[in-house]
Amino acid sequence: MSGVNVLDIARRRGFFWPSFEIYGSCAGFYTYGPLGALLKLRIEKLIRDHYVNKERCLLVEAPILTPEEPWVASGHVESFTDMNVECTKCGEPHRADHILEEKTKKSTEGMSLEKIVKELQKVGVKCVKCGGALGEPYDYNLMFKTYIGPGKSKITGCLRPETAQTTYMPFKRLFELGRKKLPMGVIQLGKSYRNEISPRQGLVRLREFSQAEAQFFFDPDDKEKNPKFDQVKRKKVMVVTKGDQVKNKEGGMMLIGDVVKKKHASEWIAYLLAVSMDLFQKMGIDGKRLRLRQHKDDERSFYSSDTWDVEYMSDTFGKIELVGIADRTNYDLTRHQETSKQSMEVNIEGKKFVPHVIEVAYGIDRPVYSAIESSVRKDGDRVYFSFPPTVSPYQVAVFPLVKKDGLPKMARDVYDSLNDAGFYALYDEGFIGKLYYRQDEAGTPFCVTVDYDTKKDQAVTLRDRDNQKQVRVKIKDLADVLGKVINGQIKFEKAGKLLK
Amino acid sequence: MSGVNVLDIARRRGFFWPSFEIYGSCAGFYTYGPLGALLKLRIEKLIRDHYVNKERCLLVEAPILTPEEPWVASGHVESFTDMNVECTKCGEPHRADHILEEKTKKSTEGMSLEKIVKELQKVGVKCVKCGGALGEPYDYNLMFKTYIGPGKSKITGCLRPETAQTTYMPFKRLFELGRKKLPMGVIQLGKSYRNEISPRQGLVRLREFSQAEAQFFFDPDDKEKNPKFDQVKRKKVMVVTKGDQVKNKEGGMMLIGDVVKKKHASEWIAYLLAVSMDLFQKMGIDGKRLRLRQHKDDERSFYSSDTWDVEYMSDTFGKIELVGIADRTNYDLTRHQETSKQSMEVNIEGKKFVPHVIEVAYGIDRPVYSAIESSVRKDGDRVYFSFPPTVSPYQVAVFPLVKKDGLPKMARDVYDSLNDAGFYALYDEGFIGKLYYRQDEAGTPFCVTVDYDTKKDQAVTLRDRDNQKQVRVKIKDLADVLGKVINGQIKFEKAGKLLK
Repeated sequence: MSGVNVLDIARRRGFFWPSFEIYGSCAGFYTYGPLGALLKLRIEKLIRDHYVNKERCLLVEAPILTPEEPWVASGHVESFTDMNVECTKCGEPHRADHILEEKTKKSTEGMSLEKIVKELQKVGVKCVKCGGALGEPYDYNLMFKTYIGPGKSKITGCLRPETAQTTYMPFKRLFELGRKKLPMGVIQLGKSYRNEISPRQGLVRLREFSQAEAQFFFDPDDKEKNPKFDQVKRKKVMVVTKGDQVKNKEGGMMLIGDVVKKKHASEWIAYLLAVSMDLFQKMGIDGKRLRLRQHKDDERSFYSSDTWDVEYMSDTFGKIELVGIADRTNYDLTRHQETSKQSMEVNIEGKKFVPHVIEVAYGIDRPVYSAIESSVRKDGDRVYFSFPPTVSPYQVAVFPLVKKDGLPKMARDVYDSLNDAGFYALYDEGFIGKLYYRQDEAGTPFCVTVDYDTKKDQAVTLRDRDNQKQVRVKIKDLADVLGKVINGQIKFEKAGKLLK
Repeated sequence: MSGVNVLDIARRRGFFWPSFEIYGSCAGFYTYGPLGALLKLRIEKLIRDHYVNKERCLLVEAPILTPEEPWVASGHVESFTDMNVECTKCGEPHRADHILEEKTKKSTEGMSLEKIVKELQKVGVKCVKCGGALGEPYDYNLMFKTYIGPGKSKITGCLRPETAQTTYMPFKRLFELGRKKLPMGVIQLGKSYRNEISPRQGLVRLREFSQAEAQFFFDPDDKEKNPKFDQVKRKKVMVVTKGDQVKNKEGGMMLIGDVVKKKHASEWIAYLLAVSMDLFQKMGIDGKRLRLRQHKDDERSFYSSDTWDVEYMSDTFGKIELVGIADRTNYDLTRHQETSKQSMEVNIEGKKFVPHVIEVAYGIDRPVYSAIESSVRKDGDRVYFSFPPTVSPYQVAVFPLVKKDGLPKMARDVYDSLNDAGFYALYDEGFIGKLYYRQDEAGTPFCVTVDYDTKKDQAVTLRDRDNQKQVRVKIKDLADVLGKVINGQIKFEKAGKLLK
């Protein structure tokens, strides 16, 4: 898009970069710099606030490092694997299915290890790095393992591959805290891990990544109808059903209401898909590049009765899954019940059952990347990020026109007052054109300049990033006006006296 | 304090509990429930916002899992150890120094492994758990280790024992982003790990814990004077210097200005100590239980030229270190330079040097615990948490007086408007006395009730948690009034028409 190298700006301006650079880096690890860390923080807040405030979810924070037992229960110890094949000459590891796909240009979806081994032999794939012969592919477990505790008393520990199980484990305690009512939503944000064989896609495929996973617990007889469904049913979205994919169709635009009416998904799943689409667009991700895609029957986890993704079409990385919404049934709770011998059953007015779960699993790093990619704009020589003020690293930057005559002190006071009013504000000094340029590349939607007239009229110049218009606003009104412009209550042009 | 079992309320009301309960728990791991997770989030925000907004720190987020090399450079691979001794009969591990201290009631500080071994033999300590004979004590490394990547290409990975090194590694990139000026502050929040031998103190000694660590980089000739020192010098605090401790003195109240004047600490260190004291008090931690304690010369890390802690006196756990402030000199950057062969030198107007670092290292879990313990109040039968509105899990709760006659809908609208105005709000329904009781135990400072009069006067009852006074406030003024009461701009009694 627009011929701008997003990865280059992202690195130069400190959104993110490969970690441990001084030690030669390590694939699958990225560090967020000042702008990226703020953008990520605000995207996390957007998701968390929605689920806590609007969906009335309980918030929980469980450890990342856990004993191994829950992952035996969940099946991860046995099945959380990819097929690894190493070069016999240089030792380079490869995803066996990926290199076969690259060679044959055919999908390997659902192929067994045995089949992959045979196919690789048949087509004679060599090491991508050195051309050497490949060894025998094998199932490689993707959990990072360690030991908890010292000496003989040590037990195996795992870095969680998802937050979900760490929310399920204390389900009974959460159910008490939620006052024994269903449906009950719980959200957890935090890091998860996946020891990828050969990660090469920046923020899109990380070994350490951030997630926001909401779990909705249901009476299985009551997991279809969502009382808020009417609020979203008129939203039009790009939809690819499992039927479309079986017939090799592209899918098409559809009302959320019709997704349910045509029995593609339940009201709850369709509602959560619509909510997710909204959230992504609030992050500045281009809605035209998003689509809802239902998993095919052979692609879904065996215990899930329905799964959907929201996918983003990236210029650089192709299709990216931003969120997965799955009906996980009562599989996980039942597995924990069997393994731990602790009951996961609830009793609601005499009806006893193990609740069903619908999960909404957001990646955070991928939406952050997609928001950056979607927001880059080129306007002549000017390059800027069009982040919405709800997620931009900073909402407003404050400058003195010059570094003398008391202007820095006045600008600093304006900055402090905006900070105190709760805005994400930045203070900077320098040549004004350069300051604007720098804020454009940081995606800061508004800039405030304190100049010589400020002493006389107690007003400042407020500049809009996107159209570069400027208005003159009284300092005493600034926080209020800025808040209203950001909320869309007033148009920028009406925020004060229009200049130029 | 006040005869209330804080840990019991904390668990019952879902602030925190031992993790993995259904699998028998695992020492050193705690889960934050809905109230605790919100409290922690707000305490993190308080610290982050202060350093980003007021100290102009850059924010950074680096991975938790790293290759081993940086920890070779930092000395953790060699020296991040505790002395472990295991029972030859039951295998129970013990901190060798701790069990010796318990037996002899004397400090083991600075004692070598050899000395500890001898002393243990001399006094004849047995296993605390089964009375069996103890084996030979040995240095046990506290880093959790794992492997990154598959098969032959795998490398050793470590869970970071502190965020600090992960901020130092990209120092040169951060220096560029900070436009090559010193001093430069950088803050990182996130998880760190310490594979404790035998953790038994709840949130105070965790194997997985949260930190907020700010690193200030200096020209070594310029790390004394802090331009904002005047703002804090009149703050009076309890101080225990290294001199006091050598003389077995208790220390005493002192002005921050005098701490510098008497050459106990530099302006920068004293300033950061004062800032930390302020932040802890803003969290609701009892200022009378806090003291500044300087590390003695034999207690300090060998590379540090001065180290101070802020300590909290806990009813349950005794002295707790909440933050450590250390002049780490140029030790870490120099070690990374030597190990990575990448220059950490800066060139400021022709002067070349490796910057010095003053670190402010907050634990998060400990302040969270201390805030909970400090805030519990008993008032007759009523138990409540007096959290300040800046950190309380919720700032305001909204109820309908009854669950009929349209009151829930009106209350829900009030709740939505407060949420939209940026308050941490909660909606609940039920018997009004029980709702107040529940919010008291959650530490919610304000409750709003929508009643039958609301339809007539478009007003609601606002109740203050601490004194239980009530005022009647117009709905249209509610957000504004609440904001001003929280900021201290108006007194609660003047917030509307005082009832009763």
